[in-house]
Amino acid sequence: MAAKTVNVALIGTKFMGKAHSNAYLKVAKFFDVEPQPVMKAICGRHADETAEFAKRFGWESYESDWHNICSRKDIDVVDIATPGGLHHDMAIAAAKAGKHVFCEKPLTFSMKDARDMLAAVRQAGVVHMVNFNYRVVPAIALAKQMIAAGELGEVRHFRATYLQDWLTDPKFPMNWRLRKDAAGSGSNGDLNAHHVDMARFLVGEIDEVVGMKKTFIAERPAEGRSAGLTATAGEGTEKVTVDDATLFLAKFANGAFGSFEATRMAPGRKNYNRFEINCSKGSLVFNFEEMNVLQHYNCADPPGRQGFKQIMATEGVHPYAGNWWPPGHVLGYEHTFVHAVYELMKAIGKSAPGSAGGSIMADFRDGAQCVAVLDAVEHSIDEGKWARVEKIN
Amino acid sequence: MAAKTVNVALIGTKFMGKAHSNAYLKVAKFFDVEPQPVMKAICGRHADETAEFAKRFGWESYESDWHNICSRKDIDVVDIATPGGLHHDMAIAAAKAGKHVFCEKPLTFSMKDARDMLAAVRQAGVVHMVNFNYRVVPAIALAKQMIAAGELGEVRHFRATYLQDWLTDPKFPMNWRLRKDAAGSGSNGDLNAHHVDMARFLVGEIDEVVGMKKTFIAERPAEGRSAGLTATAGEGTEKVTVDDATLFLAKFANGAFGSFEATRMAPGRKNYNRFEINCSKGSLVFNFEEMNVLQHYNCADPPGRQGFKQIMATEGVHPYAGNWWPPGHVLGYEHTFVHAVYELMKAIGKSAPGSAGGSIMADFRDGAQCVAVLDAVEHSIDEGKWARVEKIN
Amino acid sequence: MAAKTVNVALIGTKFMGKAHSNAYLKVAKFFDVEPQPVMKAICGRHADETAEFAKRFGWESYESDWHNICSRKDIDVVDIATPGGLHHDMAIAAAKAGKHVFCEKPLTFSMKDARDMLAAVRQAGVVHMVNFNYRVVPAIALAKQMIAAGELGEVRHFRATYLQDWLTDPKFPMNWRLRKDAAGSGSNGDLNAHHVDMARFLVGEIDEVVGMKKTFIAERPAEGRSAGLTATAGEGTEKVTVDDATLFLAKFANGAFGSFEATRMAPGRKNYNRFEINCSKGSLVFNFEEMNVLQHYNCADPPGRQGFKQIMATEGVHPYAGNWWPPGHVLGYEHTFVHAVYELMKAIGKSAPGSAGGSIMADFRDGAQCVAVLDAVEHSIDEGKWARVEKIN
Amino acid sequence: MAAKTVNVALIGTKFMGKAHSNAYLKVAKFFDVEPQPVMKAICGRHADETAEFAKRFGWESYESDWHNICSRKDIDVVDIATPGGLHHDMAIAAAKAGKHVFCEKPLTFSMKDARDMLAAVRQAGVVHMVNFNYRVVPAIALAKQMIAAGELGEVRHFRATYLQDWLTDPKFPMNWRLRKDAAGSGSNGDLNAHHVDMARFLVGEIDEVVGMKKTFIAERPAEGRSAGLTATAGEGTEKVTVDDATLFLAKFANGAFGSFEATRMAPGRKNYNRFEINCSKGSLVFNFEEMNVLQHYNCADPPGRQGFKQIMATEGVHPYAGNWWPPGHVLGYEHTFVHAVYELMKAIGKSAPGSAGGSIMADFRDGAQCVAVLDAVEHSIDEGKWARVEKIN
Repeated sequence: MAAKTVNVALIGTKFMGKAHSNAYLKVAKFFDVEPQPVMKAICGRHADETAEFAKRFGWESYESDWHNICSRKDIDVVDIATPGGLHHDMAIAAAKAGKHVFCEKPLTFSMKDARDMLAAVRQAGVVHMVNFNYRVVPAIALAKQMIAAGELGEVRHFRATYLQDWLTDPKFPMNWRLRKDAAGSGSNGDLNAHHVDMARFLVGEIDEVVGMKKTFIAERPAEGRSAGLTATAGEGTEKVTVDDATLFLAKFANGAFGSFEATRMAPGRKNYNRFEINCSKGSLVFNFEEMNVLQHYNCADPPGRQGFKQIMATEGVHPYAGNWWPPGHVLGYEHTFVHAVYELMKAIGKSAPGSAGGSIMADFRDGAQCVAVLDAVEHSIDEGKWARVEKIN
Repeated sequence: MAAKTVNVALIGTKFMGKAHSNAYLKVAKFFDVEPQPVMKAICGRHADETAEFAKRFGWESYESDWHNICSRKDIDVVDIATPGGLHHDMAIAAAKAGKHVFCEKPLTFSMKDARDMLAAVRQAGVVHMVNFNYRVVPAIALAKQMIAAGELGEVRHFRATYLQDWLTDPKFPMNWRLRKDAAGSGSNGDLNAHHVDMARFLVGEIDEVVGMKKTFIAERPAEGRSAGLTATAGEGTEKVTVDDATLFLAKFANGAFGSFEATRMAPGRKNYNRFEINCSKGSLVFNFEEMNVLQHYNCADPPGRQGFKQIMATEGVHPYAGNWWPPGHVLGYEHTFVHAVYELMKAIGKSAPGSAGGSIMADFRDGAQCVAVLDAVEHSIDEGKWARVEKIN
Repeated sequence: MAAKTVNVALIGTKFMGKAHSNAYLKVAKFFDVEPQPVMKAICGRHADETAEFAKRFGWESYESDWHNICSRKDIDVVDIATPGGLHHDMAIAAAKAGKHVFCEKPLTFSMKDARDMLAAVRQAGVVHMVNFNYRVVPAIALAKQMIAAGELGEVRHFRATYLQDWLTDPKFPMNWRLRKDAAGSGSNGDLNAHHVDMARFLVGEIDEVVGMKKTFIAERPAEGRSAGLTATAGEGTEKVTVDDATLFLAKFANGAFGSFEATRMAPGRKNYNRFEINCSKGSLVFNFEEMNVLQHYNCADPPGRQGFKQIMATEGVHPYAGNWWPPGHVLGYEHTFVHAVYELMKAIGKSAPGSAGGSIMADFRDGAQCVAVLDAVEHSIDEGKWARVEKIN
Repeated sequence: MAAKTVNVALIGTKFMGKAHSNAYLKVAKFFDVEPQPVMKAICGRHADETAEFAKRFGWESYESDWHNICSRKDIDVVDIATPGGLHHDMAIAAAKAGKHVFCEKPLTFSMKDARDMLAAVRQAGVVHMVNFNYRVVPAIALAKQMIAAGELGEVRHFRATYLQDWLTDPKFPMNWRLRKDAAGSGSNGDLNAHHVDMARFLVGEIDEVVGMKKTFIAERPAEGRSAGLTATAGEGTEKVTVDDATLFLAKFANGAFGSFEATRMAPGRKNYNRFEINCSKGSLVFNFEEMNVLQHYNCADPPGRQGFKQIMATEGVHPYAGNWWPPGHVLGYEHTFVHAVYELMKAIGKSAPGSAGGSIMADFRDGAQCVAVLDAVEHSIDEGKWARVEKIN
């Protein structure tokens, strides 16, 4: 008997478009999952490029107007992998059309938009999920298990830095990520968003924040041709309208302390997504640049035998890892997307959809709550003092 | 106009079968390559399992007798991903049938078989390649570039350890890798083979060797059901007929010194494939457990500013890396197979095939020369003294 | 001809007393320095213990009342290695008696006291130095040289964490470091003080701060017998009157951004004094737990050859290192005190004392400015908003 | 009542002379030990330099002829810190004069000399100790405790590399370490000696070896002025008469496998003394460049929570560490000499001397057995095959 399937349409053909396409391609080859995704349609702004992309990655059809995606009867799931400024309209339209919605992070930029989106998916009764893909790094899913099992005790410190360096050079040209209308914000919405979600995932809700931000290089060469994070310069210059770096301190509802730092001006840090959690019974450390490893300090180890343990989360006993290769045969960045899509399929497969279906992935409420924290950071910066984080129900 | 294609048949559906299938699935999605592989046929011993595998990975057809693969007119390339004991017959049959041959390592076990295989592919004039996949780890391909460019100077030391731990537990049951008839040897053929090839790739030919080997656990529970490197025990015990560990020292033709150590009895080492090269102008270090990093010490750095540099080989300027994700978005084990298949396709695309088509991959002569080194290691162990390595032309 | 000497009196016989004694013992054995210190007198509260200490470490005499130290004619230098609450009175008395003053950090707790102390040493015209000993870790002195030489360019980020774990266990008993009257504050004055000085040393003045602090464990077993950082519990409990953790964000006068985090509740972190500096031309990373290493990322390295370099600052060309052992023969914590005393002796040896004599060590103005930053952190916490840092001239 | 003391005479004023002097200076300040060493006499070849050295380090007297040391009545202990070629005559003379003997490694060069020396100290009934100082690195003493307690199980692999780089540059001039008459051998006697002792200390006796050696740079600039490991070139050249690198494989009596590699031609490796031990219950890793850390993999850790643990051996519970500073306040190279002298004093303090008095330090039998292993390595090289190691009783 053939496996149950769902038809997926993906909007977005750039960096995220590739990462999502790869995930749909692979998920049922490495995971036993029902339903299995059928790569039904890909959507991009430029018809020719999108046709080419469809052919390359094996999408059955393509569209150059995303509205078509929502109106097509043969689509069950809409996957939104576009710049954040487009998420709101797409997600609401998809939900209204009864499609399950899988949306890239950040969910959106404003609290109002976030609430609207959440209301829409709830009203539609569809599965809704936000792709905070780091949740499904095996080492991080392991951290979640350990915290949930009480192995770490009460959390006291969450300390996160997300460092990149691609804006260090003032000659690096403009692209959409540096424009407020398309990207919403810079390092805050792009990088801190990941760590705000991680903090909520592993520690709990954030009550108050105080932050600072800066655009170190205010003007850059105009955009020429770009691809992914690289680009060549065009003529003239353009004003950068987002932050290069945003830092903030946080107080969690459970009494833990948080510090967050995101920057694109840290030479040598390519995708240095690192966090450390200090608890009453031990500590955990993760650094994406060594993504297969979770460091664990356990206060219960015998005296004289204590130390940070490098757990290489590549064994069959670790989350997701057993579906891939033997121990020590390390995974990479793209595997997180496969795991996310696996969770998406499982959520859709459950009889009673709504939210992320009990998976460890984030749903739209999580996405909205992340927006609320980032929003509070902006408020704290505007007013030079601590700001309370709005609570999304 | 459609891209040129070649029809591939893959023999093997286990660990390597999955890794190769994944590579064919992905290569043309991330690399612009001609010809592109068509996943024509998969071959496994058990028809049902193979049918299932074909469906899962998208192979167009399947066979349960590998001879059929060789006789099928619609196959251009035969990819042999079986235990080493089967390589000889398969490769020769494929070559005789005029197929290009892509063969897993080790090429085979005996010098006679290796010479026969090399003669067969040469006579057939087909492309022949051995999948020493570590050559195409971006960090290692970078090392090769640096050495070739003279950045390191004269090589003096090559020091390699390939450590695993899956045989530490005496209760771990038998599988084919522990039987001499199927696997040829244990750690020597499986693990040292990789480093012998790496040494030849980066340093040059090996003239003489002296070694030692041991089977620490002589008898193990009989095999029950196995999958990849894991298995459950059946009833009774069986004698292990291969080595758990093999070490040897080597003298290179160019005067460099080598040391090699392979073991499956090193607790905590999952796939610790590490080597260090010390040269007249600097040093290089690689460890597969951090496969995205090449360490480089450069004697030409200014005094007081010298040290081992951690080059994360994930930038556009690094080999293969630019086809994947932005810098710092790390790759994993399976990407090496994609790069290998990319090199295979390029070699096939050249007008005058024969050998590995000028790529950095190993051809059958390389595979045979590796067998010659491993063979000399065995001789040296038998005789308790240094043994000369036979030279394959 | 005999070398010039100065007579030193040290107040303090605990952790810091040992560290300073060891430094006086060793400085002239490993460094050619004039004047050389004569270990004239040691001062501690308990006569018997102090006599014992004097004998053990080779101090010529001892006192149990520090006022005697100041009135003794045979003392040239007073070294204050007591809890911070005693620094003010001791330093002013010593200065008034015309002694050079070497004071442990933090200089003192309040702005008023700091100003008084600075005025006293200035008026006395004596050499004054605060023992921010991390400045003279070879790897850090190297960092200073590199920044001063323009190798890093404009500083954009300074990110510091000083993590310890000795208060994680609620059963750890009280000691003077947990009492506000003796210690001034907890992690802020003890740990952040080091990083505030480091930030000023390497980056520049701090203009504004905003912080948060917390005492996670409000009450602890009463003090029994203690030694260094360890202690046994007595009867009953006592209220902890200092912070367990203090975090703050900072804006530097030159536009750089800073983040500081100090805690004694980070399991596994023993003396994790780590900072990272991101600049326009590169980055530097230091972690005391690997104190012989400075990590350097240099944007000027050739494309494809960039990465963090591990400079082991143990070579003759590195600051202080050449006076000790051959390269790679690593130094430890206590060597920083020897270097500090070496700088003290050099400063005293100069014809025109006043301040730290042009050395890289901190003088009382630096010490006072550090107090001003910590003070502003406290203000910002009290008021829940950014606070300006007072400027000491 | 005053502590018991012994009068020490030290022969040697260079690198080792400094390291030993520092140890005598410090041992009784940080350790409660009886007897305490009195720094009675220092001996060096050049009277003026030795007088200067005596004054600097606080030796009460000096000699320029070592025979005087042995005939002086006021000397209880002779510490031999000269090049190895002088050890034999000095140790025998000291023993005959009834002095306890503390000798730098290697004990000597030939089996005959080693046997003579061992016979001499045994006949004299004095304490005899060889300064294999790495035994008393806290992390290594901890490793010894763990192995002795059965925490690791049966040893299967000992893998050691001792890498330095000071001979990489062909312009580096001659010094005594490159002359066979003074140094006995090069990397083998200097560096492998340490690891042979370590192997015996942690694993057990070695039965058989097979090795290789090479002098990569046969001729060097004549010696000019030298100090420690650095030197300036004089006129002309001189032939190097020792090996730059020596590697060997080993079979232990208990069935374990060993590999040893020493070289002075490994760019970037300053004092890279690293070993790894794989056992039936776990693994240990040590690297001197991070000398405060012992890595431990424990097979008994729960599934999914296994990994290499970084034990920072700086806590009170760790060997020697509690006598120094609080946890995380790292120790350096020179502390190993203090620990060695502490063990020496304890051995002398025991009522029944002879051998190393039950301490974990090596005695002359250990030193002689190490010579036997190095000697067998040389034999194996001469004959191109495995050589048996002579057994010293």
